[in-house]
Amino acid sequence: MINKLVAKIQKTGAPIVVGLDPMLSYIPEQVLTKAFAEYGETLEGAAEAIWQFNKEIIDNTCDLIPAVKPQIAMYEQFGVEGLKAFQKTVNYCKKKDLVVIGDVKRGDIGSTSAAYATAHLGKVTVGKNTFSPFSEDFATVNPYLGSDGVKPFVKVCQEEKKGIFVLVKTSNPSSGEFQDRLIDGRPLYEHVGEKVAEWGAECMGDSYSYVGAVVGATYPEMGKILRKIMPKAYILVPGYGAQGGKGADLVHFFNEDGLGAIVNSSRGIIAAWQQEKYAGFGAEHFGEASRAAVLEMKEDIAGALSGR
Amino acid sequence: MINKLVAKIQKTGAPIVVGLDPMLSYIPEQVLTKAFAEYGETLEGAAEAIWQFNKEIIDNTCDLIPAVKPQIAMYEQFGVEGLKAFQKTVNYCKKKDLVVIGDVKRGDIGSTSAAYATAHLGKVTVGKNTFSPFSEDFATVNPYLGSDGVKPFVKVCQEEKKGIFVLVKTSNPSSGEFQDRLIDGRPLYEHVGEKVAEWGAECMGDSYSYVGAVVGATYPEMGKILRKIMPKAYILVPGYGAQGGKGADLVHFFNEDGLGAIVNSSRGIIAAWQQEKYAGFGAEHFGEASRAAVLEMKEDIAGALSGR
Repeated sequence: MINKLVAKIQKTGAPIVVGLDPMLSYIPEQVLTKAFAEYGETLEGAAEAIWQFNKEIIDNTCDLIPAVKPQIAMYEQFGVEGLKAFQKTVNYCKKKDLVVIGDVKRGDIGSTSAAYATAHLGKVTVGKNTFSPFSEDFATVNPYLGSDGVKPFVKVCQEEKKGIFVLVKTSNPSSGEFQDRLIDGRPLYEHVGEKVAEWGAECMGDSYSYVGAVVGATYPEMGKILRKIMPKAYILVPGYGAQGGKGADLVHFFNEDGLGAIVNSSRGIIAAWQQEKYAGFGAEHFGEASRAAVLEMKEDIAGALSGR
Repeated sequence: MINKLVAKIQKTGAPIVVGLDPMLSYIPEQVLTKAFAEYGETLEGAAEAIWQFNKEIIDNTCDLIPAVKPQIAMYEQFGVEGLKAFQKTVNYCKKKDLVVIGDVKRGDIGSTSAAYATAHLGKVTVGKNTFSPFSEDFATVNPYLGSDGVKPFVKVCQEEKKGIFVLVKTSNPSSGEFQDRLIDGRPLYEHVGEKVAEWGAECMGDSYSYVGAVVGATYPEMGKILRKIMPKAYILVPGYGAQGGKGADLVHFFNEDGLGAIVNSSRGIIAAWQQEKYAGFGAEHFGEASRAAVLEMKEDIAGALSGR
């Protein structure tokens, strides 16, 4: 799947992933009204609105981008109905040939991590039958529990040719509370980065590993160092746009080959219609506003990369 | 909810939580056969088997114990159907007046952590209506992302009078890879423990905080130190039984008042019928085997605590 991701990034020329993190407040009135008319102001109604909203954005952007990243928390907050919308979204994106990164930030130990890996990347056996539960292509993984937590995911990646992105340095303001603390003179995130390189060595695609890393756009200098520590890890970069990261901040996350990083934007794209800049599209054409935002982001990143 | 947990521990005299982490391999043939006959060898069939298995164990142990801890990964691996069984299990345990600790190990940042907190502890609004999606009483939380990740959970705890257990020192062999690394001369888990005490100060019940901690039974010496660093935090102690922790290892996790810790056993109780010691019950009476295992665990812990 890492080979497919790289190929799709090369084909689209857009190292961009659209974060499908819908909040009800991002969804235009006409979509909500229709969903509530059919299912009521219920969890089903909310799930239907999310699904229709996602579908419109996917339809308007899928030819431009290699991948999407649905954030499962935004679905989980609507319970089982929300998770049905998550599943529908994953399936639809895969039908559109998009690479799907499940932003699930799971992590536990032993058989429990194996169960999470099965849920999101693998297959589960029931009697004589086998099922792929949520079946994303990649999942994000939390490293706090150490190798016991991550290796069950790596095993499923090897079996299924799927991938993970391990949280290394997250984009939020307080990420430094633990991640930046010095251990033997170097911050914790560098030690985690070294482990990512080690785990990833067991699980190589053609040029990059199935084990990638999450490093926030908001910390470009740290990205520069981590890029060197994990030369074969694809870096998933959140924090662009709404969180403050800019194209120029991103150059150090990429390798010399122009590959090695994929930049996420969520609100900046899916709620573009609410920005003044794209207000001309109107709420009716929110999908086209998202398309315009993707095109602008693509240009911003391409400009930054060509200028280095 | 922390007050209820403490009261129930005092009433039962059992600082024990039963981990409802069902694997299909723990479920007796007659339960599987019946579920598969009704729903086929499908995800629904697996979910039904898990639910019937849980119900029998709950019915046989609920008068002895204060709390249960369903591990969501074991349900998530069966997709949406598995999560329906999770929800059914949570609801049933609450009807039996058990405190439900959702072992979900979630953790993200800002609005995403808020969405997880809503999913598991809070309420979500859709139009004019409000829903409690999974509605556990406590949830486990991963601290790697720092305060931005944990505080949205604390906020929901304050609003809903619910609680969290933050991963501090996990029970697995490789937990030391990052958690034991020295920062300013002290291991990372102590720094996390200090933060737990700080977050918890904003969120106090009568004698303990709504913010607790996870510290593995397999590391009793570390438990001793963490007990002092977080005097008001309830400690959820995994790793007893199948993972190697014994009653005698547990004394340091408790305060002088005999409170402050609750010990989890999963496989040791729910799959007791598969142990030689309880084989006399037979697969038919697996619930009674679980009951016997709870009684033995209660005695083991009481003996250790009275002997200190």
